[in-house]
Order: sequence, then C-alpha cells, then structure tokens
Amino acid sequence: VYRAYTAGRLLSGAITINSRHRATKAGPGELLKLIRASGPVTRADLAARTGLGRASVAQRVDALLGDDLIREAGGAPPTRGRPPLRLVFNAGSGLTLAADVGAIQARLALTDLAGQPRAERRVELSVADGPEPVLAAIRAGFERLLAETGAPRERVRAIGIGVPGPVEHATGQPVSPPIMPGWDGYSIPERLRTSFEIPVLVDNDVNIMALGEHATGWRQRENLLFVKVGTGIGCGIIVNGQIHRGAEGAAGDIGHVRVAGYEEAVCECGNLGCLEAVAGGRALARAAREQGLAAGNGRDVVALAREQQPAAVRLVRDAGRRLGQVLAGFVNGLNPSVIVVGGDVAEAGEQLFAGLREVIYQRSTTLATRGLMIVPSALGARAGVVGAALMASEHVLDPAVVNARVGTPVGT
Amino acid sequence: VYRAYTAGRLLSGAITINSRHRATKAGPGELLKLIRASGPVTRADLAARTGLGRASVAQRVDALLGDDLIREAGGAPPTRGRPPLRLVFNAGSGLTLAADVGAIQARLALTDLAGQPRAERRVELSVADGPEPVLAAIRAGFERLLAETGAPRERVRAIGIGVPGPVEHATGQPVSPPIMPGWDGYSIPERLRTSFEIPVLVDNDVNIMALGEHATGWRQRENLLFVKVGTGIGCGIIVNGQIHRGAEGAAGDIGHVRVAGYEEAVCECGNLGCLEAVAGGRALARAAREQGLAAGNGRDVVALAREQQPAAVRLVRDAGRRLGQVLAGFVNGLNPSVIVVGGDVAEAGEQLFAGLREVIYQRSTTLATRGLMIVPSALGARAGVVGAALMASEHVLDPAVVNARVGTPVGT
Repeated sequence: VYRAYTAGRLLSGAITINSRHRATKAGPGELLKLIRASGPVTRADLAARTGLGRASVAQRVDALLGDDLIREAGGAPPTRGRPPLRLVFNAGSGLTLAADVGAIQARLALTDLAGQPRAERRVELSVADGPEPVLAAIRAGFERLLAETGAPRERVRAIGIGVPGPVEHATGQPVSPPIMPGWDGYSIPERLRTSFEIPVLVDNDVNIMALGEHATGWRQRENLLFVKVGTGIGCGIIVNGQIHRGAEGAAGDIGHVRVAGYEEAVCECGNLGCLEAVAGGRALARAAREQGLAAGNGRDVVALAREQQPAAVRLVRDAGRRLGQVLAGFVNGLNPSVIVVGGDVAEAGEQLFAGLREVIYQRSTTLATRGLMIVPSALGARAGVVGAALMASEHVLDPAVVNARVGTPVGT
Repeated sequence: VYRAYTAGRLLSGAITINSRHRATKAGPGELLKLIRASGPVTRADLAARTGLGRASVAQRVDALLGDDLIREAGGAPPTRGRPPLRLVFNAGSGLTLAADVGAIQARLALTDLAGQPRAERRVELSVADGPEPVLAAIRAGFERLLAETGAPRERVRAIGIGVPGPVEHATGQPVSPPIMPGWDGYSIPERLRTSFEIPVLVDNDVNIMALGEHATGWRQRENLLFVKVGTGIGCGIIVNGQIHRGAEGAAGDIGHVRVAGYEEAVCECGNLGCLEAVAGGRALARAAREQGLAAGNGRDVVALAREQQPAAVRLVRDAGRRLGQVLAGFVNGLNPSVIVVGGDVAEAGEQLFAGLREVIYQRSTTLATRGLMIVPSALGARAGVVGAALMASEHVLDPAVVNARVGTPVGT
C-alpha cells in the first residue's frame, strides 16, 4: 500500500471532475493549455502526454490550427528523415481590449493574447459621472486604439475592465461601490456588448493589479498580496495562484481595518482608526499641512519625501509603519510569500518600505516571515491595465471556452 | 463569439492539466469520485458522463468492485427487462485511524472511509515529553481501538494526525512548534510507519478542526474561517473549499496579531498587545483572579460566566470584543461566508458571541458582513479527530491514489 501511495504522488492524477460531475477527454482547449505551458511540442509529444491516440491528437491540432491559436514552428533537431513539426502558441492570433478605470482617468490598451500591448492610451474622465458617460468615453478610446493600429475589429476576442470598487465578478456588476455613484448593480458587460459583441470580464482594480504583478515575475509564487496605497488602500489576494474574491467579491478591502494606537483618527466611513484614515494619501496630506508643508494631496507629500524633506520623510515612514501593522496581521493569517506594494504613496520608495518592513518583521511570526519578500510594484501605474488584459486573455484561452469555440464534439 | 462564450460557461471544461503537463483519460479514481459525488449511478450513466466507451467503463468499474471501493446496490426503477444495477460507494471497505493530539491528551478514532467513527478513545499524555513517548502512546491507543473493535489491521488504509503546532504538510514534520519541544523537524509519518505501513497525513490541529467543521454542515460554503479560542488562539482558513496553508504552512496563526487599545498587555512571545495576551484562556484567568474570582484557567472563567457570575460575564464579553477586532480585519480581507468558533473559551456561548458579533458588524464593511454567519462549533471537542479522519480518507480516495492502487494502466 505504501508503494501505491508513492506511485499516486508521482502519477499526480490529471482529471478533475467539476461541479456538474462531468469528466471528459482532453479536447483542443486542454491541448492548447499544454502547448502554452510547455513551449514547442510535436504531435507525438501531445499523444504521449495526454494518452490520446494519434488520430484524436491530429483532429484537435487541426482545430487549433484552423482557429489560428497555434502555428507550426519548424522542426525539432533532426534524428532521421524529415524532422517533425513543432507546435507553438500563436499569441498574435487574437487581441484584447483592456481598461483600468480610476477616479479621474482610465488607462486603455490593445494587447495580444499573451497580454503584450500593441498600443496604450489614457482617457480623462470622472468615474463619479456614472456609467453612461464613462463607458462612452471608454468605448470611444477603444475605437481610437483600433483605428490607430489598424487592428481588425473581428480579431478582438474579449474585453477586460477594472473599476475602483467591489464587483460581482460573475455578472460584471459593481456592488455598492463607495466612489462610483450610479454604478451599483449596473451591468458593464451588457453596455459594452452593444458596441463589441464579445465577452466582457470585470473586476475590482486592485484584483487586476494583483493579476498583472503576479504574471510579471511572480508566477512561481502561489501566495501573493498586492497592496495599493493611494487615496484609498486596498489589497488583491492571490491564493494557490488564483485571485481570492471572497463570498461577496469583497475580499481585500483592508482600508478600514483598525490600526492599534490611532483610535482618535476619524475615517470617512464613520469609524475610528481605519488604516485609510492614518496612512492613505488624504491623511498624509492633512498631516503634512498641519506641519506647515504645502501638500494638496498624498502625491505632494511623496514628492517632498523623495526630495528628503525631513518632515515628509517622517510622515511617509510613519505611514509605512501603520500599513505594516495591518499587513502583519495578514502575514500571520495568510502566510504569503510575496507582498507587492504599489499605488501613488508607494512611489515614496524606501522611505515607505523601511517603516513597513520594520513593523512586519517585528509583529509577524518568524515562520511566516522567514521566506517573505516585500517589494515595490514592477509595473507601477500600468499594473491594472496589464492585469485587465490578462484577465480577458485568460478567459479566451480557458480550455472550456476554446473547446466551445472550435466546436469539437465531446468524447471523440 | 458571444454564443461560444456562453457555451463555454455551460460546458465547464472538466480536464485540468497538472504541473507535469499531463492530461489523461478518466481512470477508476475519477469514476469513484463521480460515484461518491452523485450517489447511485448505472454503468450507462458513467459512460454518458465521462465520454468513455462501455468497455472502458466496465474495466474501471471491475477494478473498483475488485478493490471493494464500490458495490452494486440493486436496480433502478425498472422500465423494460431487468433493471440495470446501480453502483454506490462502499465506505466500509476501508478504515482510517485518526488522532487529534493536544497539549495534555489526544483523541483517537477508528473510522470508515466516510469518516464515520467505529470507536473513539482518549489518551492522557504530555506533548512536551517529545515525539517518542507521545507517538508510542498513540500507537498503543490505535492498537487498542483495533483490538476492541476486532477490525482487521489490513483494512486500515491511512492515518491522520493533528498536532498543536505548525506542520510542513508535505513531509509531516512540525516546524518550530512553540509548545512541542523536541518535535521540530521530526518525521511523524516515518515513526508511525514502523508500526503501520500505510500513508500518514499530518497537519496543524486547527486546520483539521476547520476540515471537520467544513465537512459537517458547511460543504456548500467555499470560504470558511474556523477559530479556536483556548489557551492559544488559532485559525483554520478554507478558501475555495480547500485548507489554505500558506507559503510555509504557517497560515492561520492569528494569536499574535496586535489588538488596538491593549498595547500594555505583555505576551509570552515578547510582543505587546497580542490577541492571545488579551483574549486567550490564560489572560482571562489572570484578569479573573485580579477581580478576586477563583480561576485557575480559562475554563474556570467560562464556567463562572455560564453561571451568570457578573464579573466573569463581563470578562468573556470583553474577550469576544477583542477577538472580534482581529477577526473584523480578516472579514474585510478575506470576505468569508461562515466563521465557526470553537475551543474551550467558545464554550462560554452567547456571552462570547455577543461581543464578537458586536465588533465584527461594527468594524467590517457592509458588503463583507451582509451574508456572513458567525456560529459555534457543531463538533466541539471532536472537531479535530473528525477532521483528521477526513484528511486520511480524502487521501485514500484521491483519484490519483485510487488509480495507482487498483493499478490500471494510463490511457486504456
């Protein structure tokens, strides 16, 4: 029995049965996933790895070639006779449109199916104006991206959108978003589909930023926190390589967690001592003004700190410590292996990270911090739009979606 | 394309490709999973649901029947001719041995493969004596369970063990466990396999309690926190239906998260204001003694609170509020749909829950709490041993392990 157990570990069963209790053979979508993950492979490799017969592999590969999702990429090193053709993923076969919608602007991109941008642009808007004018501006921006690049409209396969508030991911509807009046329960996909008849995926802005950062350098780390520190403070949580959205899509809303020692600070939410009220951009600017500094918002304080203005440096470092207090709790609770910090206030760099690291290492358990990395965002302001594009392309390349698209009957 | 998207959603692809990039056909293990999930099914049902041919289904079913993992359970309602036999999971075909090891005792059980106990017993021990005497006591206890019930030793398929400290789940070794001197890096599976040559699964006690509670009434809820409040305070986190262990197996260690407003309380870990130092059993007892109550430990305070002793009631309610402060952060961060609270201090019942709910509903966002349930443990002191048995039987019934055991070649 012990031998069987070891064998079981090594075999590592590959078929899962979903909630409808249906187990099927590998289709074109599963083969595409394998090709994307493993790089150039021959048809014989695919047969060996899937257990499918040569005819079944050929039929699935033809379907993928027919849809242009893969292409043949020259031979393997020749052994004898003509080398077999290798198959590779063709990321250029489709495009996505992506938008990261912020309070006062949106970043838009046209990307290929690997998330590589063909073109990007910014659109000024006010999210508080409500969904109709904002989505009209985004549609117009998308049209301009297509016109500028000459990309054929029919090659756009999906749209990914991030918005600054909680979203019910399955329906693409914001749920009581505090800074988005008029958007509660509004179907963003339905509105955009009047112009683009393709799937529209919507998520919270911090979740898509986490996706973008995770895909850019941290794919091997299965447990990652992305923390955005701006006017608001939020967190995208990646657990077992997947965005954790929680029961109501509200996970990651850490801006209103109470910080020990600052019970007097009044938050806009009505509670006392919330993280946003003691470490967010607005709180930083207020504290700076009280000390006689000219600071209209958090970015001004960050700029002063980068110039080594002593009071600003102190304020940013304190903000890092307060953020560290809250994150220390999540380090103990979730034991992530990476924390990526982004947002306007994170532009302060080492001044913020010094305070943050100090408190996390002091307040978290040794076991939880021994392998922990705390790093600045690699993508900066582009994290959201990169993540939105990846959310869209991951949908397009989902095996079930590929199987439905290329239309192979189940069980052949 | 929109039609394809919808179809993709409905189809919900069933084959995943694991980290070795291997996709295989459904084997006996996958069929067993299907039978367990869906209840009695005919061979024809299995063929329809898996896309396998009749011969392949027959071969896999024979393998499962041969291993006694399923049995034939009479006919379906007859339509014409002899009704086809239905296949059901045979939970009695195998047994597990389970132990929930605490500081001063262990609970042991012999269960079937559905986790139903055949017999249970308690063993007095001191976990601080180190692994050799403790595991000897557990082995002796297991032998007595087998002898008492007359269960054949060879039908025991796996052992599940929970211990009061962090564990590297893949190897079954405790990692720097604070209250388990001598156990750091000790291979529990290796030691137990000298007596029982079967797989041994080991996890943290709070994780197995979370497993037990989740399986007992909350299987439909994918995001659950189990909080144990005793001398120590810890948390088992279930995300997407799975235990979240974190990068180092340290997830859920919430006892040393700092509680706002109690910075003066010195914790045994050396930090100030830790949750354990202001809401754990020891802290409760100390506070009770300071008020002139006779309380040797947290359980004494709980007993007094249950008798409505006013000072004890106040202390327990305050402990609930402090626990609520820390959990409010995790409610905002993780957005669970259920919080189950167990452990000695939770025996105080409504006195603790009143304070806990008050603070969670006040300090968490509306969205995160609108569907949240906060409930006492259903299993009480048995949660750990039930969870340990389930951990063992889930391993035995894992499709890859079943396939390796019943020995069907891949791809037939």
